[in-house]
Amino acid sequence: MNPNPLTDLEEVQLLDTTLRDGEQMPGVSLTPADKLDVARELDAAGVHVIEAGSACTSEGEREGIRRVAREGLDATVTSFARGVRSDIDRALDCDVDGVNLVVPASDKHVETKVGSSREEVVDTTVELVEYAKEHDLWVEVLGEDGSRADLDYLERLMGAGLDAGADRVCYCDTVGAAGPERTAEVASRLADLGPTSLHTHDDLGFGLANVHAGLKAGADTVHGTVLGVGERAGNVAIEEVAIALDRCYDVETVAVERLYRLCRRVSEVTGVAIPPNKAVCGANAFAHESGIHTDGTLKDGTMYEPYPPETVGRERRLVLGKHAGRAGVAAALADHGVDVDDDELGEVVARVKELGDRGKRVTDADLLAITEDVQGRERDRHVELIDLSATSGGNLPTASVRLRVGDEERVASGTGSGPVDAGLEAVRAALADETGGVDAVSFELDSYHVDAITGGTDAVVTVAVDLSRGDRSVSVSASDADITRASVVAMVDALDRLSELGDDGDEGNADGASTSTPVGSADD
Amino acid sequence: MNPNPLTDLEEVQLLDTTLRDGEQMPGVSLTPADKLDVARELDAAGVHVIEAGSACTSEGEREGIRRVAREGLDATVTSFARGVRSDIDRALDCDVDGVNLVVPASDKHVETKVGSSREEVVDTTVELVEYAKEHDLWVEVLGEDGSRADLDYLERLMGAGLDAGADRVCYCDTVGAAGPERTAEVASRLADLGPTSLHTHDDLGFGLANVHAGLKAGADTVHGTVLGVGERAGNVAIEEVAIALDRCYDVETVAVERLYRLCRRVSEVTGVAIPPNKAVCGANAFAHESGIHTDGTLKDGTMYEPYPPETVGRERRLVLGKHAGRAGVAAALADHGVDVDDDELGEVVARVKELGDRGKRVTDADLLAITEDVQGRERDRHVELIDLSATSGGNLPTASVRLRVGDEERVASGTGSGPVDAGLEAVRAALADETGGVDAVSFELDSYHVDAITGGTDAVVTVAVDLSRGDRSVSVSASDADITRASVVAMVDALDRLSELGDDGDEGNADGASTSTPVGSADD
Repeated sequence: MNPNPLTDLEEVQLLDTTLRDGEQMPGVSLTPADKLDVARELDAAGVHVIEAGSACTSEGEREGIRRVAREGLDATVTSFARGVRSDIDRALDCDVDGVNLVVPASDKHVETKVGSSREEVVDTTVELVEYAKEHDLWVEVLGEDGSRADLDYLERLMGAGLDAGADRVCYCDTVGAAGPERTAEVASRLADLGPTSLHTHDDLGFGLANVHAGLKAGADTVHGTVLGVGERAGNVAIEEVAIALDRCYDVETVAVERLYRLCRRVSEVTGVAIPPNKAVCGANAFAHESGIHTDGTLKDGTMYEPYPPETVGRERRLVLGKHAGRAGVAAALADHGVDVDDDELGEVVARVKELGDRGKRVTDADLLAITEDVQGRERDRHVELIDLSATSGGNLPTASVRLRVGDEERVASGTGSGPVDAGLEAVRAALADETGGVDAVSFELDSYHVDAITGGTDAVVTVAVDLSRGDRSVSVSASDADITRASVVAMVDALDRLSELGDDGDEGNADGASTSTPVGSADD
Repeated sequence: MNPNPLTDLEEVQLLDTTLRDGEQMPGVSLTPADKLDVARELDAAGVHVIEAGSACTSEGEREGIRRVAREGLDATVTSFARGVRSDIDRALDCDVDGVNLVVPASDKHVETKVGSSREEVVDTTVELVEYAKEHDLWVEVLGEDGSRADLDYLERLMGAGLDAGADRVCYCDTVGAAGPERTAEVASRLADLGPTSLHTHDDLGFGLANVHAGLKAGADTVHGTVLGVGERAGNVAIEEVAIALDRCYDVETVAVERLYRLCRRVSEVTGVAIPPNKAVCGANAFAHESGIHTDGTLKDGTMYEPYPPETVGRERRLVLGKHAGRAGVAAALADHGVDVDDDELGEVVARVKELGDRGKRVTDADLLAITEDVQGRERDRHVELIDLSATSGGNLPTASVRLRVGDEERVASGTGSGPVDAGLEAVRAALADETGGVDAVSFELDSYHVDAITGGTDAVVTVAVDLSRGDRSVSVSASDADITRASVVAMVDALDRLSELGDDGDEGNADGASTSTPVGSADD
C-alpha cells in the first residue's frame, strides 16, 4: 500500500496555460517574442505540456504559437481549439504537437451558448477527435463547464472522445463554481474512463483545494498558470500546485527551484504585479517583521517557515517596523557594522516602533539615522540636496541640482526621458569628478520603485530606491506629492549613506554605517 | 441526516485578525484611527470576533485596540497575548472583551524558541487561563505551530487550557506547512476536546483547503484576514471563506454583500493593492475579455460566472482586447451610441485585435478612434494639446499648457502638489470659461492610475484616467517615459472625447461618437 494519502503517482504532470487561459486575463496581451520567452522558462522548469495560445484568436497569436512550437522544446506544445474544424486547421498551421479541444458540456453551454443539442455535440466531438488524430495530433478533450454539467451526459461525451482516439479528457470547472466534493465526484467518474486532467479556477478560492480533491479522485494531470493569471479570479497557480505536492506528498511536478524566476518573468511580460503576500513568489513570502517571528527565525531558520526559501530559489529577509523586537534590530545593526549597548538598543527599538506606529516603513537609512541620534553621534552629511528644479512635458525634460558634496557646493544639470530621469542625470553629473578622472563617483541605481498611484494627481507618492557602489548597497525611501522631488531626495539620501565609506576610502572603517545589505538579510 | 457534506452547522463563526496577524505583514502599519475604521466595517459585515491587535507591541497599538474595544461594537473584541501575565495585563488595560492567548506547542517552539519544557508550558497555560478568566475575559488558547506539534502533547496542552476554563482552543498552522490530511487529523482531535478554531496560512496555497478540511473534521470557527494580508504568504482570506461557504454549502458567516467594500477599505488603509485576479474583490473577478466569454455572457450572465457579481456588491465588466469578438465589440459600440454595419464591425474587431496583439489595452478612446477610421469619418479634435511645460522639484510645482479648444488657442498655467497635479490645474484653467460664468467647464477626474513603476527612471509609464462630466465618462490611457506628459496627454484626450457632443449641443447626433458629456454645454 502506498502511504501517500493523495495519489498513487510519484509524478503529476503539469499543463501550463499561462499563454492561453492566462493571457485571456483582461488587460494582458503577449507579443510572439513574449510567448517564446515564457515558453522557454516553462520548458526549463520541466512543465510537461505548454498550451501556447488559441490559434483562432489572431494572426499575431498564431505567430506566437508557431514560434513556441518550432523552438524544439521538450514540452508538448499545444493550441486551444474550439469545437470547429477550422480551429484545428489553424492549430495545424502553427505546427503544434497537439490540441486542447474544448466542447460544451453543460446544458447552458450546449443549448444557450452554442444553440446545439447533446447528441450533436457528441457527434461533432467524435468527428473532430478523429480528424485531429488523422493529423497526428495529441488530443485532450475538455468538456467546458463540466462542473455544472449533467454527470451522465458528461461521462458519455468524454467517453465518446476517448473511444474516438483522444489521449485524455479534462474536468473543467470553467467558472470556478465547484467545491471539493463536486470535483471529486466528477473527476472520479472521468478517471474511470481514461487519463484525466483537472482545470480549476479560483473564483471561490477553491482552485488548489479542487486540485487536491481531483488528484485524490484519480486524475493525473493539472492545468494551471504562473501566478494564477487568467479569466476572472484566475486559474490555479502552478507554483502553488508544485510546491504543495512537493512538500506535503513528495509528488514531483517541475523543478521547484526555478519557480521564483518563472514567476518574476511572467510578472514582467504580463505587467501583472506579484502580490506581496503570494505563496512562493511574493516579496513577503520569506520576510519577517514581527519581533516574535524575527527572534525565532534568528534562533532557527525553520521556526517560522514551512520550507527553506532556497527551495524555490529565494532568500530570507528580515524587515523592521512597528512589530520589531530587540533581536531583529540588533541583527540589522550588526549587518551595518554598528555597535550599540543594551540601553541604546532598547531606545533604538522604541524609536523604530514609534516610526512604525505612524505607518512608516523603516529603511536602512531610517535605522541608521535613529541610531546616530540615540548615540548622540554628530554625523556630517556627505552629500546633501540644496536645490532642485526640473522641467518636463516638452521634448527635452531637464533638471538641475545644487548639491553640497563634502565641503563644496556643486551645480549640475542633465536631461533625460522624464523629470525623474533628468534628475538622476543631474545628480550623476554633480557627483562626477570634475576632472573626469578615475575618482569619478560611480554608482548603480539597482532598483527604482514607485507603488501604483491611485486616488488622484495630488496623492503622496513613495519612491523606494536601492543604490549600490561596488558590493555595497543601501535602501532608502522618500515620500512627496511631487514625484520628481521624492525620487531625487531618495537618490541623494542613498548616495549620502554610500559616501560615508567612499570619501575616506576606508571600507570597513569604524564609523561603520556600511549599509551593505538590505536591512537584516540575516541568513546570507 | 444533514445533507451538507462539510459541516452540520448552519453558521460558521469568523474571527478576523486583519488588525493583528494582518498588520504583522511587513510594510503594513495602521494608526489607531485606521484600526477603528476597519473594525467598524468588519462589525457592519457581522464578523463575530475582531482581534484588534497585540497589546504588547507599542503604545500606539494599545491606543488602537482601546478605541476598537470602546466603540461598542457587536463583535467580541480581543487582543493577542503571548504566554506571559504582563501581556494579559496590557490587554486588560485596553478594555478588550477577550484574549487570544498563544502558547508554544511544537517542540521547536517550546524548546528552541522559548527555552522551556512541555510541562512548564502546560503549567503556565493553566495559570494564565485562570488569571484571564478571573478578569472576566473570553479566552481562546492557541497552540503555536500546532500543525508541527506532537499530537499527544498538543491534545494535553489544549485539554489543560479548556479544563482551566478557556472558552475555545485553536488549531494553528502557524507556518502554513500542513496539508488537508494533517489539518483534519489535528482538528478532529481538538474538536473532540471542545470548541475549536482554525488558523491557517497560505504558504503552500492550502489556506482554504485546510479550512475546508478542518471544518469537516469538526471545527466551528475560522480565523482569517481581509485580502489574506498577514505574515509571509498571508492568512486565509475571509472573503474567500465567506463566499465559498455560502455558495457551496449554504453555510452562513458574514454579510457577503459587504465583502467588496470591506476589501477596498482594507486595501486603502494597508496600502496593499488588490490583485486583479483575486476572488471576490479583484478588478477582473467579474470582467470578461475573450470573445467566447463575452459572447456567452451577453447571452446569459451566468454563462461564465460562478455567481452574480451583485452577491458581493459588484458589477460585471466587459473589456476589449486581442481576444475580443464581434458580440463584445458591438455591445461596446452600442454603449457609445455608435452604429456600424456588418462589414465595418468585422474591420473594427480586426483592428481591436491588432492593437491587442501589440500588447496594448484597448480603451474607449482607442475603440472610438478605430471606428472613425474604419468608417472614414473625419473627426475634428475639440480639444488638443499643443504645448506643455512643467517645473517641479522646488517649492511650487508649476505647469503651463497651450490648448486648442474648438477654433481658439488658449494658454493657461496652474500650480499643484507636483508636476502632474499642476498640469491638471493648468488644463482646468485653460478650459474654464474666461468670463467665469455658468458655462465654465467642469469635469471630474474619477480615477488617475499609474501602474507600479519598476526597472529604472527611464521606464515608460502608462497613465490611465477616467474622466466624467455629469453621468457620462470616458477611459483613456497614454504612455510616455515622461510621467507629466503621459498624464496630461491622457487627460486632454479624455476631455476631447467628452467634448464631442458639447460643441454642437446635439445629443445623439449623427456623427455619433457620443461617448460622453459635452464639455462646454450646460447640460448639468
